Amino acid sequence: MTRPRTLVEKIMARASGGADVRPGDIVTVQVDLAMAHDSSGPRRWRARLEALGARLWDPDKVVIVSDHYVPAVDPASAEILKTTREFARDYGVERFYDMRGICHVVLPEHGHLKPGMFVAGGDSHTTNGGAFGCYAAGFGATDMTAIVATGKTWTVVPETIRVEIAGEFREGVAAKDVMLLLCRELGMGNHFKTIEYGGPAVRAMDMEARMVLSNMAAELGGDTGLIEPDETTLSHIRAHGGEVEDEAIARWRSDAGCGYAKVHAVDASALQPQVAAPHSPANSDAISNASGERIDQAYIGACIGAKLTDLQMAARVLEGRKVARGVRLLVAPASAKVTHAAARDGTLATLTEAGAVILPSGCGACAGLGAGLLAEGEVCISSTNRNFRGRMGHKDAQVWLGSPFTVAASAVTGTITDPREFLGERRRAA
Amino acid sequence: MTRPRTLVEKIMARASGGADVRPGDIVTVQVDLAMAHDSSGPRRWRARLEALGARLWDPDKVVIVSDHYVPAVDPASAEILKTTREFARDYGVERFYDMRGICHVVLPEHGHLKPGMFVAGGDSHTTNGGAFGCYAAGFGATDMTAIVATGKTWTVVPETIRVEIAGEFREGVAAKDVMLLLCRELGMGNHFKTIEYGGPAVRAMDMEARMVLSNMAAELGGDTGLIEPDETTLSHIRAHGGEVEDEAIARWRSDAGCGYAKVHAVDASALQPQVAAPHSPANSDAISNASGERIDQAYIGACIGAKLTDLQMAARVLEGRKVARGVRLLVAPASAKVTHAAARDGTLATLTEAGAVILPSGCGACAGLGAGLLAEGEVCISSTNRNFRGRMGHKDAQVWLGSPFTVAASAVTGTITDPREFLGERRRAA
Repeated sequence: MTRPRTLVEKIMARASGGADVRPGDIVTVQVDLAMAHDSSGPRRWRARLEALGARLWDPDKVVIVSDHYVPAVDPASAEILKTTREFARDYGVERFYDMRGICHVVLPEHGHLKPGMFVAGGDSHTTNGGAFGCYAAGFGATDMTAIVATGKTWTVVPETIRVEIAGEFREGVAAKDVMLLLCRELGMGNHFKTIEYGGPAVRAMDMEARMVLSNMAAELGGDTGLIEPDETTLSHIRAHGGEVEDEAIARWRSDAGCGYAKVHAVDASALQPQVAAPHSPANSDAISNASGERIDQAYIGACIGAKLTDLQMAARVLEGRKVARGVRLLVAPASAKVTHAAARDGTLATLTEAGAVILPSGCGACAGLGAGLLAEGEVCISSTNRNFRGRMGHKDAQVWLGSPFTVAASAVTGTITDPREFLGERRRAA
Repeated sequence: MTRPRTLVEKIMARASGGADVRPGDIVTVQVDLAMAHDSSGPRRWRARLEALGARLWDPDKVVIVSDHYVPAVDPASAEILKTTREFARDYGVERFYDMRGICHVVLPEHGHLKPGMFVAGGDSHTTNGGAFGCYAAGFGATDMTAIVATGKTWTVVPETIRVEIAGEFREGVAAKDVMLLLCRELGMGNHFKTIEYGGPAVRAMDMEARMVLSNMAAELGGDTGLIEPDETTLSHIRAHGGEVEDEAIARWRSDAGCGYAKVHAVDASALQPQVAAPHSPANSDAISNASGERIDQAYIGACIGAKLTDLQMAARVLEGRKVARGVRLLVAPASAKVTHAAARDGTLATLTEAGAVILPSGCGACAGLGAGLLAEGEVCISSTNRNFRGRMGHKDAQVWLGSPFTVAASAVTGTITDPREFLGERRRAA
């Protein structure tokens, strides 16, 4: 009988050829899927590949997404997009998603992720894919170039921090609030570690909420953010055109008695909405200690904060209400499919009725690109994952982070506001 | 009995104090409404007003609209918007529409225009307002500063070119096609002239189509583009919160026998869709002579080309169809109200189903700002009003102009396409 192993050890073992591997081992792995976007991908690959005389190791295992410079706001960004399109054409990349949304959301929308895979992505929030039980991690442009040329890379087998989330979320509290709490409690320096989320509150989550946990594993400093697959996972993959076997559930999980580096407990039932003050996600606190700050802008966007359920959270708060005078509410749906679904189900109509401005799908202001950047001294509350200084415009702008509930509630009042004031439940912090 | 007068002579006479005025007279007029946007307005006014120790002559007669730099795509544009917001607050401008859409569309959405007014706007397409029977003309920033400080300006009483449009439009032909035809037939140098549109085809138009005629009076070089008010005009004004007397119809019209400088006839029934090739609206031709050109981008936007009826034209073509692979269709609704109406009536769902990307409301790529700019060598067909070299991105990009029908049809095929191929009527050019 083999020793009890963590999920990430099992994935690394398979990807590196089947030998038993342990945390700290350096292994060479076969990559199952390589993903990059218009910023990290073709414009950084092409000259190097041409110098090497190399082609893509397998164009069908490469996904390219244009999401950073879309739609072009100047001739320079238009040129980057042109380079991206030409590369996809010249190198035979059929899975090129041009202006269809943010890569981390586009991948699962097309069923490209499944448990046990090793996914290398040219973006730090590639961790998002870990919600599907695959090792999905960000790599720099030089590593990615080697990966798309050879299909291989080396990595260190990580230790695992298990985050066990018990209880049930209260009204107005979302997965995002867990992550703002964890950034404070675990810190942002958990490098060379996998964050694995489990427990009853995670099992109860839909895939969009789970992706929030995996996404912000990046802010914790983790390699990836794993969630063991279950029926919810498999149903989602199949509903989006992916193929996956039922046995994936039993196969791709951490064994009882595996050696976690740490187990960290969260009680969802006791959690209240969290906000992170400028300029770090770890600079977070319960909203009861932070409300009242005046805002200029409320922003619902990014891979983590603008999927359909995120827009629906905002719509629940905004239904029948208006954005405060002097405040602007910007909503950048995470993908074209999200925009379309929200157009069909009435969510966009509710948001625009309240005064929201709809932006195109893409990384946008979260990446310091596109619409919604801030002037000196302006204050924004945002459903995005990072509030580092200068990331969303002027270096002296102030960005707070919160859930889509909290961002929407703050847009209504013009100050940072507990969304439970609008959702029928107002509960004092423990 | 007074001599027969043109509509513009009557407006100028009233605004200048009641004396009889004739074309060529230089008059000083009292301005009824002054409008400017974030590009032309506060950032150019403030220092001059402060140097003069001046305030606004009447803050209730000044409308400010942020539409050029919205939403901010860099800290510099964020700063321009901040300057605009601070000015509106400090100078008591209540009619400040912040990110609510393009000024020329926002003005009538709020009932601010009515027959007989003298409207001075800090934008060349202020002519758009002439559809409501008012003299609405663009002024430079220096003139506008004097106007908002004093409420007065001087102008030359213009001659009038009457464009008489008979017949009925065929399926797939729109007001925009008339204007592309007129740019070719009348040329773009009709300076110090008012273009007055009339005839059965104009009477049959809704106000959104009439605004297209008045809007592109700017491309003809005219001061403004007047349309005599009728019941359609009055109903629209009242439906949008404006007040206007029934007698306006009889009062604000050109008299029989007035001295038009020229009368130009158009037969709507014989008109086929028109496109303008790069780099001038006057470089136009019937689509039967121009179809087949490959495109990279199709753009539906701007004050002239993205009102609700424009989006509905596009949706009629796109219903049940998809944007061609390799082509991007961008739709920037002209105002927040248009976005909301299109979200409610299903138009946005039809557009996004076809693959369109929805952009925020504003001048955007039409003004060389915001999303949708072009790279070197790219080809775009656009529902906007100008295709001057370099206006929409790189100087070596190619922009064609067409109606929303034509832009949508071209997005479906990936080449410039006669929309009648998709609308059930295909008629040979005369």
